[in-house]
Amino acid sequence: MTDSENRNEQIKKLRELIKDIDIGMLTTVDEDGTLRSRPMSINSEVEPDGDLWFFTYASSHKVREIEQQERVNVSFSDPQKQSYVSVSGSAQLVRDRNKLQQLWKPQLKAWFPKELDEPDIALLKVSVEKAEYWDAPSSFVAHTIAL
Amino acid sequence: MTDSENRNEQIKKLRELIKDIDIGMLTTVDEDGTLRSRPMSINSEVEPDGDLWFFTYASSHKVREIEQQERVNVSFSDPQKQSYVSVSGSAQLVRDRNKLQQLWKPQLKAWFPKELDEPDIALLKVSVEKAEYWDAPSSFVAHTIAL
Ligand SMILES: Cc1cc2nc3c(=O)[nH]c(=O)nc-3n(C[C@H](O)[C@H](O)[C@H](O)COP(=O)(O)O)c2cc1C
Repeated sequence: MTDSENRNEQIKKLRELIKDIDIGMLTTVDEDGTLRSRPMSINSEVEPDGDLWFFTYASSHKVREIEQQERVNVSFSDPQKQSYVSVSGSAQLVRDRNKLQQLWKPQLKAWFPKELDEPDIALLKVSVEKAEYWDAPSSFVAHTIAL
Repeated sequence: MTDSENRNEQIKKLRELIKDIDIGMLTTVDEDGTLRSRPMSINSEVEPDGDLWFFTYASSHKVREIEQQERVNVSFSDPQKQSYVSVSGSAQLVRDRNKLQQLWKPQLKAWFPKELDEPDIALLKVSVEKAEYWDAPSSFVAHTIAL
């Protein structure tokens, strides 16, 4: 395998792991330097380059946090399958109507009862800079992907 | 219930959730500001005040990171059980022999083949400042515990 084939394989593997787990813990840095994380759903979508999109309320605390400090981490873990993923990147608020429509899924209604009519609805885009994953029960060694 | 009874209940709940999941994703801030996470086992131990202890190699990358920036997050997620926990705190390297002996578990041999004779073995103590958890499938709202 060439390096780029190998890299494509790695990204494919990463996408599969993340899609299956679906709920990631998004870690942001608070105004006072505290690191906070919270569960967020990727709605089974991962862009081919590994970028992640989340629906959010634009006025939520995490959005204020990323406006101060855009560096974030999204971790995915499935203890049953022993698969663990760390995605390092930077987050950005996106209020594009087309993108909101394109990514909308009916199950989001539980979280956004007014659906796309919710005036405060927005997307958080996490552009991936680096990812690491651990997938074999016996292996403690990370696979690293630089994007 | 009084406030302190309520707080004790919350901490008890938190300990149970974390113990069951066992593997947390420890997020640290890298020298260049990147947020990185990696799976770490708590070996089914949580101190009564919620503090977390991890075995580590003292010369590992994450130890260099916490020496620069001690603020960390440990997130625990179990998608099957729909339980999610965020622990915000500060991490510190501890090389106390008694504590190492007290916390040692045979399953750690897979990771430290020389067991406690490993010269580079150490503990990472995460002192908890704040914790949040989400535990009901239908509830998106966090329970917050300030410690
Ligand atoms: C399983 C699960 C999935 C969630 N998915 C989302 C989500 O996709 N978007 C979102 O904004 N909040 C989601 N939440 C709620 C967040 O975890 C969090 O409580 C909320 O966004 C407020 O966070 P903040 O105050 O840090 O901004 C989810 C919660 C759970 C338990």
